[in-house]
Amino acid sequence: MHIGLIGLGKMGGNMRERMRNAGLTVVGYDRNPDVSDVGSLEELVGALPDSPKVVWVMVPAGEPTQATVEELSDLLGEGDLIVDGGNSRWTDDQLHADMLAKKGIGFVDCGVSGGVWGLKNGYALMTGGSDEDVAKAQPAFDALKPEGEFGWVHAGRKVGAGHFAKMVHNGIEYAIMQSYAEGWELLQAVDEVENVTEVFRSWREGTVIRSWLLDLLVNALDEDDDLEKIRGYADDSGEGRWTVEAAIDNAVPLPAIAASLFARFSSRQDDSPAMKAVAAMRNQFGGHAVHP
Amino acid sequence: MHIGLIGLGKMGGNMRERMRNAGLTVVGYDRNPDVSDVGSLEELVGALPDSPKVVWVMVPAGEPTQATVEELSDLLGEGDLIVDGGNSRWTDDQLHADMLAKKGIGFVDCGVSGGVWGLKNGYALMTGGSDEDVAKAQPAFDALKPEGEFGWVHAGRKVGAGHFAKMVHNGIEYAIMQSYAEGWELLQAVDEVENVTEVFRSWREGTVIRSWLLDLLVNALDEDDDLEKIRGYADDSGEGRWTVEAAIDNAVPLPAIAASLFARFSSRQDDSPAMKAVAAMRNQFGGHAVHP
Amino acid sequence: MHIGLIGLGKMGGNMRERMRNAGLTVVGYDRNPDVSDVGSLEELVGALPDSPKVVWVMVPAGEPTQATVEELSDLLGEGDLIVDGGNSRWTDDQLHADMLAKKGIGFVDCGVSGGVWGLKNGYALMTGGSDEDVAKAQPAFDALKPEGEFGWVHAGRKVGAGHFAKMVHNGIEYAIMQSYAEGWELLQAVDEVENVTEVFRSWREGTVIRSWLLDLLVNALDEDDDLEKIRGYADDSGEGRWTVEAAIDNAVPLPAIAASLFARFSSRQDDSPAMKAVAAMRNQFGGHAVHP
Amino acid sequence: MHIGLIGLGKMGGNMRERMRNAGLTVVGYDRNPDVSDVGSLEELVGALPDSPKVVWVMVPAGEPTQATVEELSDLLGEGDLIVDGGNSRWTDDQLHADMLAKKGIGFVDCGVSGGVWGLKNGYALMTGGSDEDVAKAQPAFDALKPEGEFGWVHAGRKVGAGHFAKMVHNGIEYAIMQSYAEGWELLQAVDEVENVTEVFRSWREGTVIRSWLLDLLVNALDEDDDLEKIRGYADDSGEGRWTVEAAIDNAVPLPAIAASLFARFSSRQDDSPAMKAVAAMRNQFGGHAVHP
Repeated sequence: MHIGLIGLGKMGGNMRERMRNAGLTVVGYDRNPDVSDVGSLEELVGALPDSPKVVWVMVPAGEPTQATVEELSDLLGEGDLIVDGGNSRWTDDQLHADMLAKKGIGFVDCGVSGGVWGLKNGYALMTGGSDEDVAKAQPAFDALKPEGEFGWVHAGRKVGAGHFAKMVHNGIEYAIMQSYAEGWELLQAVDEVENVTEVFRSWREGTVIRSWLLDLLVNALDEDDDLEKIRGYADDSGEGRWTVEAAIDNAVPLPAIAASLFARFSSRQDDSPAMKAVAAMRNQFGGHAVHP
Repeated sequence: MHIGLIGLGKMGGNMRERMRNAGLTVVGYDRNPDVSDVGSLEELVGALPDSPKVVWVMVPAGEPTQATVEELSDLLGEGDLIVDGGNSRWTDDQLHADMLAKKGIGFVDCGVSGGVWGLKNGYALMTGGSDEDVAKAQPAFDALKPEGEFGWVHAGRKVGAGHFAKMVHNGIEYAIMQSYAEGWELLQAVDEVENVTEVFRSWREGTVIRSWLLDLLVNALDEDDDLEKIRGYADDSGEGRWTVEAAIDNAVPLPAIAASLFARFSSRQDDSPAMKAVAAMRNQFGGHAVHP
Repeated sequence: MHIGLIGLGKMGGNMRERMRNAGLTVVGYDRNPDVSDVGSLEELVGALPDSPKVVWVMVPAGEPTQATVEELSDLLGEGDLIVDGGNSRWTDDQLHADMLAKKGIGFVDCGVSGGVWGLKNGYALMTGGSDEDVAKAQPAFDALKPEGEFGWVHAGRKVGAGHFAKMVHNGIEYAIMQSYAEGWELLQAVDEVENVTEVFRSWREGTVIRSWLLDLLVNALDEDDDLEKIRGYADDSGEGRWTVEAAIDNAVPLPAIAASLFARFSSRQDDSPAMKAVAAMRNQFGGHAVHP
Repeated sequence: MHIGLIGLGKMGGNMRERMRNAGLTVVGYDRNPDVSDVGSLEELVGALPDSPKVVWVMVPAGEPTQATVEELSDLLGEGDLIVDGGNSRWTDDQLHADMLAKKGIGFVDCGVSGGVWGLKNGYALMTGGSDEDVAKAQPAFDALKPEGEFGWVHAGRKVGAGHFAKMVHNGIEYAIMQSYAEGWELLQAVDEVENVTEVFRSWREGTVIRSWLLDLLVNALDEDDDLEKIRGYADDSGEGRWTVEAAIDNAVPLPAIAASLFARFSSRQDDSPAMKAVAAMRNQFGGHAVHP
């Protein structure tokens, strides 16, 4: 199979390599000429054989993906396919699919998990779109996914299903990380438990909470026992927010995931405006000292 | 009525004044001789006429209250009464009552709300104990409570009922303050609303959320529009913690109150250990940058 | 002042009466001819004197408001003004204002609080829009608002500011109600406190948590001591959801308000899908019994 | 090694088998004579060779463990050892250790994870106590733990360290289960994703959230796709509550774990008292209908 791949950053670059290792012919394009195989999208599309041309878009969600899809819509034609493997909001997918459908171009959305480990272990892929469109990109999915029976799903025939499933994956991920993190903080806080890292390490087998994230946390603790070199500052990349928004749209209570999202927001504040207000009220009614 | 009052700090001092204004004869004792009427507990008890002697203890919860009650148990006798008006945990009350009962001394627990405004507006009082014991201190309750039909309740005939009710009052208070505080932070964060203080001020009439705490928050905003002089640091004095513990004992879900308590804990952390762990995990799987 | 008022339901009908009591000439329109003063929007606009005509829209948010504003845009002209007093999402306001601006029609958004008590006590009003536009409707605001210095605010000169402020008001309202509700549940759950209604009643004076909502809750408890006649089922009308969404957009942690929203979602579920999954997992690893 | 084992229920019975499989000589006692090797604790102790006798207590936490430890304290002597492998609260351990120390009997607490899978996979063990005492039971630990380098830890030399670590393990477990459960509910709620079970199955490889609990959830979904046969009702066995209490004692914010605990409490309520109060307030101010 030939495939075009746009976006050769941390994720895209490794995905090109994994697909090539699997025997696919990948033409990659990136704004950075040092890593790009071709000089333009036009050149990339020209390098793909016809019937159908498949182009995988792996650029940041929002404007960059929007612009790339639009440009490709002028370069591709009837029967071709675009796969959006970026972190797009699932609501963007139908807009892209509708625009492309007018020109007969197919669209599949594909949520991709795997991070820096994907090259070696494979990428978990969650796809949305028609059976026909998904089939066109199946060799790419097979190349990218982990070995074995897991790691790929056709989540729904509506476009957006793949990104929706990936979004929820990330929402769950936020809350699982928060779960371990809260437990770690509590163990660190008490005198009873002397060696918190060893406790976490022991949990890697035989416990209910063994997981890959636990293994990773133990790796991190082995490098820096008390995490002294790391600030308690956690970014969020959108999917956690969208998960809570989708839950609100569907009247689904999501207390643990929302708490995890809010903990990240708080972690990025130098001072909490809300707690200023609380301190101000306490001072007003009780004469409690405030901290300047 | 004659009454002994032990503890003449911010609260106790004003309560002495309010009781005296109401015509009671108050003998106050404090470790600080500048404010004390007598030199010792013995002298205080000696200054009270018999049948029955009523002593109101208004010292910090825990050890100080424990020590005071023990000392008084040697000085008082059959038919006398101790009122614990401090912030004792309700579980302490039965222990104190049992110890005193052996000597025939009665015990009433009394949660007191009012802060720096109590002298002028009166103190809300929540009491627990037998009808007979409560009746012995009724003149003091009547003097301290606000005018009108509200502000005093005999919450239960078990000792501890008063402190339990006061504890829940404070738990609710935590969450109501958090409610306003979250709304304030959100309004401050957006461009749409230009004058947040004026919005809060407008809410003082006609809205569903008008309250005394709202009035106080407006006072604070009038002094410092953006609360720039106040750090987002909020202490907690025990009742919020006990409220959540009591809820756990009774399998009562308390999400808003617990969230408010945790927000206070977080406000006092320079850096969040839990979010260090989250940042460490994100770095491990995604190569996300960590902040040193 | 003459004013047109569209929507004469529970809120609108009382608002017409309050404005008339204040001496305004109100022409009301409603789809229900029994309460309507005129037979159509055209007739309503025709009944208003020129320069400027002011029309207050008080219909459900979303489609009904959208349709009404559109119809009015064909009937009004240069210099006239539409006030949207409904529960519109603040993001709708700029769309309406832009559409109307093309025809020279002004727009003010006005969040209205007050419920069934507004006729008597006045309605709290939070407005957004240019100084000039707001001034055109000022007599209506003055008639509707409570007496005294509070209850009206010009929250910002951007349209949407009023609805945004009202939205946050409602978000706070959710959490304050949840605060009292959690406290009530805990007091009901324990033996210590015998008369929960009397405890709540006592809190109406002298406490930190006295408020109008507390007064209302005591009213409800006086009618039905244990709330046996009421199901624990709470609807939500949109503003709570939008508040959390706005917080997410602005990375503002909102744990208590979100918890209150989720509690409402849960209250409407016959069974919790999430807790089915928890029960299923417990059964898988521990052989814990599941309840069919 | 010879070891006495008291309590041969779901856990204890399998542990006896696993220790015997590893070559230990186990004398088991249970109140149920059908599974017991001996007729009394006295007989059990008598069957163990001297120096030192090691007895593993595996009975329910609280009163049963207390009674068993007390009875054993009369039967064992200087240099012998009791291991409490039940789910005792860590605060009980020091009390037991102190009582036993007076007679020269050692004490080790051991949190045990593994459930119905432990016989086959091994039990994760978290121990607390002196190096000397832990060493006496090491052959039992080695027999019970999973193969490989993980699954056993000496969490601290203070007794209680093992149960504390196990308690936090369970708190984390609550929140991880809640994380998956919330994601499952959201996926079930939307039309976009057609096959939720397949999405979860796909996550078993290549994703950030792969774990043993995920595997178990997929097992459950394979048996009952929409979990229609399971009620959304989740018990809690104490450790989750103690985790939150320990966090409160140490001022550690634990929002996700607490949310998970509260979700369990709610799952067991036929109707929510708190939401009755919310519905009552909404009715009072807005005339919103209540559901009888």
